[in-house]
Amino acid sequence: MTPPVHPDIAHLSNLIGTWRGTGAGEYPTIESFRYVEEVTIGHVGKPFLAYSQKTRHAETDHPLHAEQGYFRPVGLDQLELVVAQPSGIVEVHEGTIDGGEIELASVIVATSSTAKEVTTVRRCLTVDGDTMRYEVDMGAVGQPLQHHLRAELSRVPS
Amino acid sequence: MTPPVHPDIAHLSNLIGTWRGTGAGEYPTIESFRYVEEVTIGHVGKPFLAYSQKTRHAETDHPLHAEQGYFRPVGLDQLELVVAQPSGIVEVHEGTIDGGEIELASVIVATSSTAKEVTTVRRCLTVDGDTMRYEVDMGAVGQPLQHHLRAELSRVPS
Repeated sequence: MTPPVHPDIAHLSNLIGTWRGTGAGEYPTIESFRYVEEVTIGHVGKPFLAYSQKTRHAETDHPLHAEQGYFRPVGLDQLELVVAQPSGIVEVHEGTIDGGEIELASVIVATSSTAKEVTTVRRCLTVDGDTMRYEVDMGAVGQPLQHHLRAELSRVPS
Repeated sequence: MTPPVHPDIAHLSNLIGTWRGTGAGEYPTIESFRYVEEVTIGHVGKPFLAYSQKTRHAETDHPLHAEQGYFRPVGLDQLELVVAQPSGIVEVHEGTIDGGEIELASVIVATSSTAKEVTTVRRCLTVDGDTMRYEVDMGAVGQPLQHHLRAELSRVPS
């Protein structure tokens, strides 16, 4: 049984749910690609949101990226995100929330010894009713911070 | 449908599954506590394991800790772990695997602005058939690295 949403995350409750859709990725060092994605955002009655996502290649259905972490609101207009990725990367983000619009920038990107170098990540996420859109900019493998991912997802009816 | 286990994680396949059990936590700055825990370890056919866990207080059933991340084997005897926690903490661990025994030490612990200070974490995890045991040592909030958690879990029949 899911407990009531904690008052400190009430203004984030429109994020809670399962979201599915498609996106496109590009970067100077790789071939552009299209993907299908499922995002799950949940809570346990405490003042944070648990977040996880998985993507698969749109044509081959091969699993691509995944990540898991937590959104932590700080008051009503600030937000932290901590996230881990199977590519050996962890990110700590801080930023703002304004209505349905979240802007985050990495304050720490750390990698394990065998991971590729990632230096900076920016994430912009908007929720408008049952539609979630996000963009990710990334600076990695010697390239400056630049556009990497864009996706649009729809809320899966519960 | 779950794909076959990637050959690079075949030696970790005894970790895959859902595990439930109980543990005990202690630290100089808090009251000792007992908890119930569920750990889930899965894969998608790629050379890593997805890991998540949740604990609840053994007496009050109140949700306590949670974390999510990924195990990344490096050859047959080394292992990386990246993990994010709702307390605003990310950890990058590196260590060894020897049969069912995993020894990991943090190489990076990073925290968001509002998180408590954690400096060092060591994790020892053993799997013996359908029993998983782990210990976590932690250096945090000005205290030196010391014993923090111990738990024993059983594999949930699938």
